[in-house]
Amino acid sequence: MSEAWRIEGGFGLERLVLGPHEAGEPGPGEARVRMTAWSLNYRDLLIVTGAYNPKQKLPLVPLSDAVGVVEAVGPGVHRVAVGDRVCPAFASAWIDGPVSVDGLRSSLGSPGDGVGLRARCLPAEGLVPVPGYLTDREAASLPCAAVTAWNALFESGDVGPGQTVLVQGTGGVSSFAHQLAQLAGARVIVTSSSAAKLERAKARGAWQTIDYRADPDWGTTARKLTGGVDHVIEVGGAGTVEQSLKAVRPGGTISVIGILDGAAGELALTRVLMNAIRMQGVFVGSRGMFERMNAALAASELRPVLDDARFELEALPAALERMQAGAHQGKITLGG
Amino acid sequence: MSEAWRIEGGFGLERLVLGPHEAGEPGPGEARVRMTAWSLNYRDLLIVTGAYNPKQKLPLVPLSDAVGVVEAVGPGVHRVAVGDRVCPAFASAWIDGPVSVDGLRSSLGSPGDGVGLRARCLPAEGLVPVPGYLTDREAASLPCAAVTAWNALFESGDVGPGQTVLVQGTGGVSSFAHQLAQLAGARVIVTSSSAAKLERAKARGAWQTIDYRADPDWGTTARKLTGGVDHVIEVGGAGTVEQSLKAVRPGGTISVIGILDGAAGELALTRVLMNAIRMQGVFVGSRGMFERMNAALAASELRPVLDDARFELEALPAALERMQAGAHQGKITLGG
Amino acid sequence: MSEAWRIEGGFGLERLVLGPHEAGEPGPGEARVRMTAWSLNYRDLLIVTGAYNPKQKLPLVPLSDAVGVVEAVGPGVHRVAVGDRVCPAFASAWIDGPVSVDGLRSSLGSPGDGVGLRARCLPAEGLVPVPGYLTDREAASLPCAAVTAWNALFESGDVGPGQTVLVQGTGGVSSFAHQLAQLAGARVIVTSSSAAKLERAKARGAWQTIDYRADPDWGTTARKLTGGVDHVIEVGGAGTVEQSLKAVRPGGTISVIGILDGAAGELALTRVLMNAIRMQGVFVGSRGMFERMNAALAASELRPVLDDARFELEALPAALERMQAGAHQGKITLGG
Amino acid sequence: MSEAWRIEGGFGLERLVLGPHEAGEPGPGEARVRMTAWSLNYRDLLIVTGAYNPKQKLPLVPLSDAVGVVEAVGPGVHRVAVGDRVCPAFASAWIDGPVSVDGLRSSLGSPGDGVGLRARCLPAEGLVPVPGYLTDREAASLPCAAVTAWNALFESGDVGPGQTVLVQGTGGVSSFAHQLAQLAGARVIVTSSSAAKLERAKARGAWQTIDYRADPDWGTTARKLTGGVDHVIEVGGAGTVEQSLKAVRPGGTISVIGILDGAAGELALTRVLMNAIRMQGVFVGSRGMFERMNAALAASELRPVLDDARFELEALPAALERMQAGAHQGKITLGG
Repeated sequence: MSEAWRIEGGFGLERLVLGPHEAGEPGPGEARVRMTAWSLNYRDLLIVTGAYNPKQKLPLVPLSDAVGVVEAVGPGVHRVAVGDRVCPAFASAWIDGPVSVDGLRSSLGSPGDGVGLRARCLPAEGLVPVPGYLTDREAASLPCAAVTAWNALFESGDVGPGQTVLVQGTGGVSSFAHQLAQLAGARVIVTSSSAAKLERAKARGAWQTIDYRADPDWGTTARKLTGGVDHVIEVGGAGTVEQSLKAVRPGGTISVIGILDGAAGELALTRVLMNAIRMQGVFVGSRGMFERMNAALAASELRPVLDDARFELEALPAALERMQAGAHQGKITLGG
Repeated sequence: MSEAWRIEGGFGLERLVLGPHEAGEPGPGEARVRMTAWSLNYRDLLIVTGAYNPKQKLPLVPLSDAVGVVEAVGPGVHRVAVGDRVCPAFASAWIDGPVSVDGLRSSLGSPGDGVGLRARCLPAEGLVPVPGYLTDREAASLPCAAVTAWNALFESGDVGPGQTVLVQGTGGVSSFAHQLAQLAGARVIVTSSSAAKLERAKARGAWQTIDYRADPDWGTTARKLTGGVDHVIEVGGAGTVEQSLKAVRPGGTISVIGILDGAAGELALTRVLMNAIRMQGVFVGSRGMFERMNAALAASELRPVLDDARFELEALPAALERMQAGAHQGKITLGG
Repeated sequence: MSEAWRIEGGFGLERLVLGPHEAGEPGPGEARVRMTAWSLNYRDLLIVTGAYNPKQKLPLVPLSDAVGVVEAVGPGVHRVAVGDRVCPAFASAWIDGPVSVDGLRSSLGSPGDGVGLRARCLPAEGLVPVPGYLTDREAASLPCAAVTAWNALFESGDVGPGQTVLVQGTGGVSSFAHQLAQLAGARVIVTSSSAAKLERAKARGAWQTIDYRADPDWGTTARKLTGGVDHVIEVGGAGTVEQSLKAVRPGGTISVIGILDGAAGELALTRVLMNAIRMQGVFVGSRGMFERMNAALAASELRPVLDDARFELEALPAALERMQAGAHQGKITLGG
Repeated sequence: MSEAWRIEGGFGLERLVLGPHEAGEPGPGEARVRMTAWSLNYRDLLIVTGAYNPKQKLPLVPLSDAVGVVEAVGPGVHRVAVGDRVCPAFASAWIDGPVSVDGLRSSLGSPGDGVGLRARCLPAEGLVPVPGYLTDREAASLPCAAVTAWNALFESGDVGPGQTVLVQGTGGVSSFAHQLAQLAGARVIVTSSSAAKLERAKARGAWQTIDYRADPDWGTTARKLTGGVDHVIEVGGAGTVEQSLKAVRPGGTISVIGILDGAAGELALTRVLMNAIRMQGVFVGSRGMFERMNAALAASELRPVLDDARFELEALPAALERMQAGAHQGKITLGG
């Protein structure tokens, strides 16, 4: 018998319940994975509080990010073997190529059950071996945040040497985008309201940093520094997109990967139009993207930025509270 | 001595003045073009009324679209010769490749003088010979509207067989987008509030038509018809983008080419993000795009959709009023 | 008990043996498909004669192209249901995105068993429902030839309105490339040594035809007709690529999809280099490409070009002899 | 009065004559540039010996690569000003976008006069300001070799983190490709027959090096090291492409940028086809590519690899002899 977190009877952190869970035997095409570490995304918080999808059916096992070891495989499974260290891809049915409705529906933690548990069976086609140099905590940080950053920069986008990328804040996706953009030869501007966080971003190679509280018109500042940023990693949503539209050069791209500061709001479509700006929604990515990113990680031995706080799986509510407070830098992880 | 329309002393249709204008001799790299036909874009109306850019310096010769004959070339000009029938490209400094600030600044009719006149000198590098099968009125309809549609579908976008394109209304860009998308093997859905206009769109091959007044939730209707439209030609802006976001499939594209119904408004960023939608601002296009489109026109002998009303250059204010009233279908032209 | 063709004991048409075959019960992730029609590719002939891969292990069930009906599904199969009419994709492990070694290895008819039989179990992930308007013979013609043409033109390539495509001959891939290129608004030049075949190509809409026997320097002729062809569908290989290199414009593409006239030969690399030509090997395509093509077929109701001769599965050797003689036009099919 | 090198009366290094040359006054759209440094490409050697184009009209001023200072501008020139340090782009008429016949014809040093002289007038549209951190010798090394490498990797190709690039040798294009690929996060394999050159390549960050004399089947070695190289920079042509075809992964790219070891030869088209390999001819690049590359150089302060030998313009024949002997590493420069 094993354990799983479930959102039961309604939304809210207080409705998270840790209860018994039977992982069962893997069916055809499935593998049973025993998780060793997990990581949190802002999406998980929205799911638990009900803001993500108020119509979400309950009970629901939350979380989409984990790493574990294959401990059994069902009939017809050739992709992984017992003992492999793997991450479940965010959307097991999105193998590669363009996103599809079926792909989106297969995403973990909503609408279906996630990985906030000790062990479960998963489709083997959706499991991805992870580079050996990574710790379990680091590997657990990849499936959502790192793949989103990779997709934004290199699959939906085309970032490379000579370009400038602006990343908002120092959360999970932003930290990965910062590191991956540098790996590809781009220069990175980081915004934050915390001097300490900007200091650390600088230490990780940021070309420029901007305190957005001290400089509320930071979009204009970024444009002046660069003549127009090539690519913005937009995590704030309605609350920040106005500045992003000011920052970006004609023909540039804003990757919409989060809506921390508002789900809907005034958008200056005139600027989108007259500067031929691309606003690209990025919803994590395919298994193929995860694999191509892993090749880049293995070659560079890039170290994910993890928040200093450590939690066990039992402390999931506390970990989510830390995310809610915004006190973290990089990925919040559990276990490992 | 020749004539030119100018916006003088303030904005508004009543400030349009037809006065004398000296075309002069072409300088180095220039050619003098005698115009034979002109066409209107909604942008011209916004410029004249001051809505486009309230800081626009006056006086200003309006209009960006015309066709004419080269009647003199300056020193160092090899691209065109006396007697060539040419259109001025919308932005003479945008030869090809990605858009640039310099390219945007070179656009006709704002910020610099346009082609609402009998003859003027223009940079020869920005002149584009037009296919012989087109009448002058048809050729005059191309520089803004047709190039915008071409860019949206085939340069910024990738429309082809098996795809569905939704075009809003039956104005200039939308009519070209309708025809060009069909030429490329795509199926087209046309929206309008006029039964007569939908009838004509049907006659031009529309796969489906939707009366958006009778069916205000037309985005949902379009999605149900198709499983999700691949590409939307968005001309309404803030007033229609909500429905466009409903119409488009996961991973689909909304080409933002106009803001007829509002320059800024609530945008459901959550939908952009969770369906990985691309919103692509399209600001006309390069000389190279114009040339590639001309090859497609010449091969297909596509006939541009022209509004039935006919005007001479002297009647520019009346032609703009017709546009303002929304009574036209296809491009409003003058001369020819 | 069912039947299967096998290459046994050595290569050659005379080593093809029709013998008993047990389709068995579908395992996890598998479906059993009862075939109703088949089609031949030149590759099948090369495989049977041993020219394709002399190291190929025998016995081997040949053929990669068929259509059939799902008559049973194994555990864990959701993609197809009993009664569905499906084609096996050429390479069941190549779902979408870039080609991979694993994808190539999963191709039917070599290195593994193919579909030259009455019924067999196949991975359900590799089955593709086909548009209802197609007859069984037409549907059976798609998996190799049509998907190759689609991939060459629209996935590896970017053919559209205003472009010119040259297709060599009127075999399977070339006929599909002819029709699909026209569907996308391109003009098509067809070469052949048979006046009758050129006549039929003309009837199917060819813009120009060239008799390559009467005009051995047909590459130069094609360049003069067009100023340089945008895309060549190269099926001859070493024997024809010299002319293809002459036909294509600077920056143009030669899709290498066959080697009918020679597997290796002198290649003028200087021309590849100095005209910035892309030579793109095209090896069929992914399941995703098959599906995107099917959307285009369903929307256009394009009718595949089938050879007039009709064969039953028992007559496979005679059908292969017809291919060897080069007497066919379009796809040779069996059954249906 | 100034001086220019000319190939006069026939081909061969001994037919190079240094004679008087009048730079003249810049015409409309032109600027006069006083050269301060030059660099050699293998193409220059082929042009002088007549191997490049036996029909080349003589006399001809050779060389395509130089840097200089604008000392006068003609009427209508806004792009550059007196005092600017600029390189002439290789093909002044190829501004950006796809290559064209006109673009190819405008290339310096063949078919028209080049820059092997003290000063000349050139179209201002073809002049490119160079990053200030570069010495004149370094700047002179860019127009052909660096732009070719940039185009191959990032414009025709899509090299980035996680990929492996194999560069043949340590000549001009190969050295730039080595450095630029690393800048973009790729790993680089360098081949050479010189232990000393491999040593230096290692010092510049090469991930692996292969002595192709000691290991004639180096293509297989490279594939084993990587599972298949993503991108090969092919400079040898017919003499090396067989190994390149072995080295590259399914779906990989071979950029054909040189033909040092043979202009035409047996090519295994079967491998191109069955591994879906892209062979991409790369013929330098556009002005826009040069500018985008300069942004990457300025941001990274990458130092071009220059051969140790130093020459003045008067010593052009000796410099070409050094190239012929293959004793150099990196770019051979003059002046500076």
